[in-house]
Amino acid sequence: MQIPFTPLVAGLPSTTPFVGPEAIERKRGRTFKARIGANESAFGISPRALAAMQQAVTESSWYADPESHELRSALAAKHGVALDEICVDAGVDSLLGLTVRMLMAPGKNVVTSLGAYPTFNYHVAGFGGNLVTVPYRGFHEDPQALLDTARSSKAPLVYLSNPDNPMGTWHPRETISQMITEIPDHCVLALDEAYIEFAESDIAPPIDTQNPQVIRFRTFSKAYGMAGQRVGYAIAHRDLIAGFNKVRNHFGLNRIAQVGALESLRDTEFLATVTAAVGRARQQVMALAESLDLYAEPSYTNFVAVDLHSTERATAMIAALAERDIFMRMPGATPLNRCIRVGLGNEQEFEWFSQEFRQLLQNV
Amino acid sequence: MQIPFTPLVAGLPSTTPFVGPEAIERKRGRTFKARIGANESAFGISPRALAAMQQAVTESSWYADPESHELRSALAAKHGVALDEICVDAGVDSLLGLTVRMLMAPGKNVVTSLGAYPTFNYHVAGFGGNLVTVPYRGFHEDPQALLDTARSSKAPLVYLSNPDNPMGTWHPRETISQMITEIPDHCVLALDEAYIEFAESDIAPPIDTQNPQVIRFRTFSKAYGMAGQRVGYAIAHRDLIAGFNKVRNHFGLNRIAQVGALESLRDTEFLATVTAAVGRARQQVMALAESLDLYAEPSYTNFVAVDLHSTERATAMIAALAERDIFMRMPGATPLNRCIRVGLGNEQEFEWFSQEFRQLLQNV
Repeated sequence: MQIPFTPLVAGLPSTTPFVGPEAIERKRGRTFKARIGANESAFGISPRALAAMQQAVTESSWYADPESHELRSALAAKHGVALDEICVDAGVDSLLGLTVRMLMAPGKNVVTSLGAYPTFNYHVAGFGGNLVTVPYRGFHEDPQALLDTARSSKAPLVYLSNPDNPMGTWHPRETISQMITEIPDHCVLALDEAYIEFAESDIAPPIDTQNPQVIRFRTFSKAYGMAGQRVGYAIAHRDLIAGFNKVRNHFGLNRIAQVGALESLRDTEFLATVTAAVGRARQQVMALAESLDLYAEPSYTNFVAVDLHSTERATAMIAALAERDIFMRMPGATPLNRCIRVGLGNEQEFEWFSQEFRQLLQNV
Repeated sequence: MQIPFTPLVAGLPSTTPFVGPEAIERKRGRTFKARIGANESAFGISPRALAAMQQAVTESSWYADPESHELRSALAAKHGVALDEICVDAGVDSLLGLTVRMLMAPGKNVVTSLGAYPTFNYHVAGFGGNLVTVPYRGFHEDPQALLDTARSSKAPLVYLSNPDNPMGTWHPRETISQMITEIPDHCVLALDEAYIEFAESDIAPPIDTQNPQVIRFRTFSKAYGMAGQRVGYAIAHRDLIAGFNKVRNHFGLNRIAQVGALESLRDTEFLATVTAAVGRARQQVMALAESLDLYAEPSYTNFVAVDLHSTERATAMIAALAERDIFMRMPGATPLNRCIRVGLGNEQEFEWFSQEFRQLLQNV
C-alpha cells in the first residue's frame, strides 16, 4: 500500500535545518566539552526566572493559558503596543512556519539571502514555495537587492535578520527604516530580530504596528538564555496577528516556559549583565583573531565570524575542533563559508577554544 | 494595503478549538476553585519527573536534542518498536496538525465523529480540507460508519479516539483490530489513544508498525499528568514517521519537558498509583450520579459524562457551576450535549463539585 502523502509532502526531501550536537556526540561516541556552535547562551538564565520555573514545575499538570495573557501584557507594555498586536508561540521557528503558511500560497516565490537562516527556508519548502535567494554583499545582507528581488519575483514575503545569523553583522536603523518604506505593496517583511537585545538601542527601528507590511520576531532563546524553553513572539499589525491566531497551535506553549519568560522580562538587571558579558566575550574573540592575524567580523550577536580565507580551511577547522571536543558550526553558503562561526562561551570554553584553535591553525 | 494572506487563510474563521479557563476567569474577574473541565490530571506528576525537571531547568539555555534520542529509545523499548517508528513532538495537538498536513491535500475529505476532538477539526479546516462527520451511536463512536464514510468520501484520513473524548467510552480491542483490517486502501487511521494508559491492558490492540495505515497517538498530558509540558508521540510505520520528519519543527520540543517525559516513563510505580486513583475517583462520580438518579456513562478516561437529559439543562448546569467557581465543560454536539463532562478532581475538588451539583440540580 502506497501511503497517501500529499504530492507536496511526497516530493519533499528528508532533510533537517540543523543536526543537533547530541546527534554528533552519539556518532562520535564522545561528548563535546565546549558547546559553542548553536548560538545558545553561555551566560545562563535570570535567577528569578530559574526560581520561578522550578516552582512552576509543580504546576505541570495544567495547560498553559493559550492566550498567554500575562506574558503578552508584559510584552505589550515593554514595546508600547496593544495586546492584540503580539502573538506568543513556542519559539521563532514555529512563528516563521506560521508566517510562511499564512502568507505564501504553494508555488509562490519567497525571498531571502543566500546563506541566511535555514529553518526559514525549510518552512518555505515545506509549504510548497519557491525560495529565491539574494547573495550577501560581502558579509552583510543586501536590503536593496532583497527588495528588488521581492518586487521582480512578486513575492508575498521577504526575510531579513538584523543583526544577522550566521555572520553577526547588522544594518543601522536608518537602513532598515528606509527598507520598510520601500517594501513592495504585495509583500510583507519578516524582520527576524532574534539577537536584537544585544544591539537594541543602536539598531532597532521604531516598532510601528500601524504598518501591515512588517512582522518583528523576537525570542527568549538568545540574550535571555532560554533556548531550551521555546518562547518567541511576533509583533505586528493586529490583522497579521489575527492571521496567526487562525492557524497557530493554541495550546502549544509550555506552561513553565511561559512563567520563565515573564519573569525574565521583569529581570532587566540580568539582561544588562548578559549583554555586557557578551560584549566582553566578543572582544576576547576579536582580540584572539587579531593576535593570529585573522579578520573577525564585528558582531552584534553572541557569536563572531572569523575569516579563514577558504571554505576548505574553514571546513577542516570545524572538523578538527570537533576532534578536540569543541562543537562549532560554519556558514553554509558562499561567500560566508570561508568563515567559522565562533560562539561566545564561558571563560572555560573560550580558553579551550583559543588553545585548540591556535594549535590547529598551523595544521589546517 | 491588503495583507497578502493566502486565499485559504483569508477564508478561515477566527476561531479556537477551546477557550482556556484563564480567559473565563479574566472575564468573570474571579478564579475557579475547582479546575475540572480540561481533562487535566488532578493526580500530579511523577515525583521523579518533578525532581528531574527542577534540576533540568538549570539547562534551559540549551536546545533539546531535536531527535529526542533518549526519549524515543525508551518509548521504542516500551512499545517493542524500532527507533524510526516513533516521532516525538510538542503534544498530540501538534502531531495531529502535522498528520493532516502530510496526508490531506486541500479540498480533500477527512472523516471524524460529530462531536469528537475539536482540535483535529481545527487542523483540517486550517489546511483546507472538508470535514465529513459521522454521528455517534448513542454515546459511542461508530467505527463501521466511519470506515464506510471514509470509503465513500475517498478520505485519505479518518480519526478515531479510543477511549474517546468527550464521552470516555471505548471499543474493545477486537473491534479496533477489526476496524484496522478494513481501512480503505486510500486511507490512514489516526488512532488517538491519549487516554490509553487508563485502559491499556484491556482495550489497546497490538501495535503493528508494519501496517502503513495506522498512526497511534500517545501523550504525557493525561495519565502522566504533564499537560503543561507538551510532550506527545506518534507510533507508526517508518515511512509515515519519515513523513513527520519532513515537516515537523525539529527544534520545537522543550528540553525540560523531554527530561520529564523520560523520567515519567521510568516511574512505572507512579503511573500505577495514578490509574488506581483515577479508577476510584470515577467510582465516586458514578456513585454520586446513581445517588441522584442520573445516568453516568462508564468511562475509561479521567472524566465521566453524566446525562442531564437535555442540552438546555446541561448548558445551564455548566453556567451555574461556573457561578459557583467550578470550571467544567460539556460536549459540543448532539446527542452528546445532553451530558456534562465531569473531570476527576482531587478529593477537595470532588467534594466542592458534589455539594454544588446536588444543590444546583434542583434549580436547573
